[in-house]
Amino acid sequence: MQLSSSLLENAVNEFAKLPGIGKKTALRLVLHLLKQEEDHVHVFSDSIREMRAGVKFCRRCHNISDGEVCSICESPTRKQRVICVVETIRDVIAIESTQQFNGTYHVLGGVISPLDGIGPDNLHIDSLIERVEKEQTEELIFALNPNIQGDTTIYYIQKKIHHLPCKITTVARGIAFGGELEYADEITLGRSLANRLPIESYMKPM
Amino acid sequence: MQLSSSLLENAVNEFAKLPGIGKKTALRLVLHLLKQEEDHVHVFSDSIREMRAGVKFCRRCHNISDGEVCSICESPTRKQRVICVVETIRDVIAIESTQQFNGTYHVLGGVISPLDGIGPDNLHIDSLIERVEKEQTEELIFALNPNIQGDTTIYYIQKKIHHLPCKITTVARGIAFGGELEYADEITLGRSLANRLPIESYMKPM
Repeated sequence: MQLSSSLLENAVNEFAKLPGIGKKTALRLVLHLLKQEEDHVHVFSDSIREMRAGVKFCRRCHNISDGEVCSICESPTRKQRVICVVETIRDVIAIESTQQFNGTYHVLGGVISPLDGIGPDNLHIDSLIERVEKEQTEELIFALNPNIQGDTTIYYIQKKIHHLPCKITTVARGIAFGGELEYADEITLGRSLANRLPIESYMKPM
Repeated sequence: MQLSSSLLENAVNEFAKLPGIGKKTALRLVLHLLKQEEDHVHVFSDSIREMRAGVKFCRRCHNISDGEVCSICESPTRKQRVICVVETIRDVIAIESTQQFNGTYHVLGGVISPLDGIGPDNLHIDSLIERVEKEQTEELIFALNPNIQGDTTIYYIQKKIHHLPCKITTVARGIAFGGELEYADEITLGRSLANRLPIESYMKPM
């Protein structure tokens, strides 16, 4: 793309580095910003800079945080002895938006994946085990994606803490709401039959 | 969306103001930037700020420019007495990317549209007429979108300059390459029959 302004071209190239943003979309976004008042553009560019400089990671659960410890870990109304183990910050946001969970989190930062060169030492697993030991955690809920890597990670952590009096659970797997039996894969369908629920617990209000 | 960091939330909200970017996409982009090195994020945010502060509009053709006059208007190899009239900067970029045009441009900034409250005074029409008079323009090529507003604008400008010895043309309308006759609307198909081309000019190399 040939642009008659190198400043515009710079900005377009920078936008096009973002994931899922091609050159045409980048141009559309930059021309939009060009039409905005200069103050608005400053607010936009400052918000990015401040975000990168200011956002910290909670030293307890590794979730994003404005301070040393995140608002979830500091909250007195949340069950501090229930930990939901997730892969990424995005999973925390997804679970929070259900408003169904009242415990704390632990963000691993990924899952064990030898093929990608990711071992237990690359993840926040040690700090999780330390938490479970020190905080007398009552329940560890694994909310990892259902695949080999996720299951390996669960297995690894479980072996490390099986001597502790901590209940270990995982989120239910089964047919998704709105999904169709016909198109479910065999493993999902097989497991959802094996782990069938009594109808009372299915009908229970959330 | 409930985020545990107000700085992150700010940045997400700012991104979500961009056209076609929703909250989820905004979050994805911001988390991507959060993972980048701080220097890269500064380059990104500076490129936006500098673009907004530095990009000027060419005082001759109203195209974007780094200086007072844009690189196309300054180029000695381009035919300065041929003007292609377009609606927006994006149209300039689209035509430039064909590499088929060797004249200059005039960006109107829109088209006459009484329903939207846009009259000739809101557009760069006066400066176009002034250019045609002063620069002894040889040809004015209209490359406006084919709709009522575009045609009205052509008609208006044409009436204003019909006393000048300037050829007035418009880009060809017809069946698009890759398009199918069957699905063309009646006006396009009808006009493309009425304005049929001698086969020699069709087969002529570009």
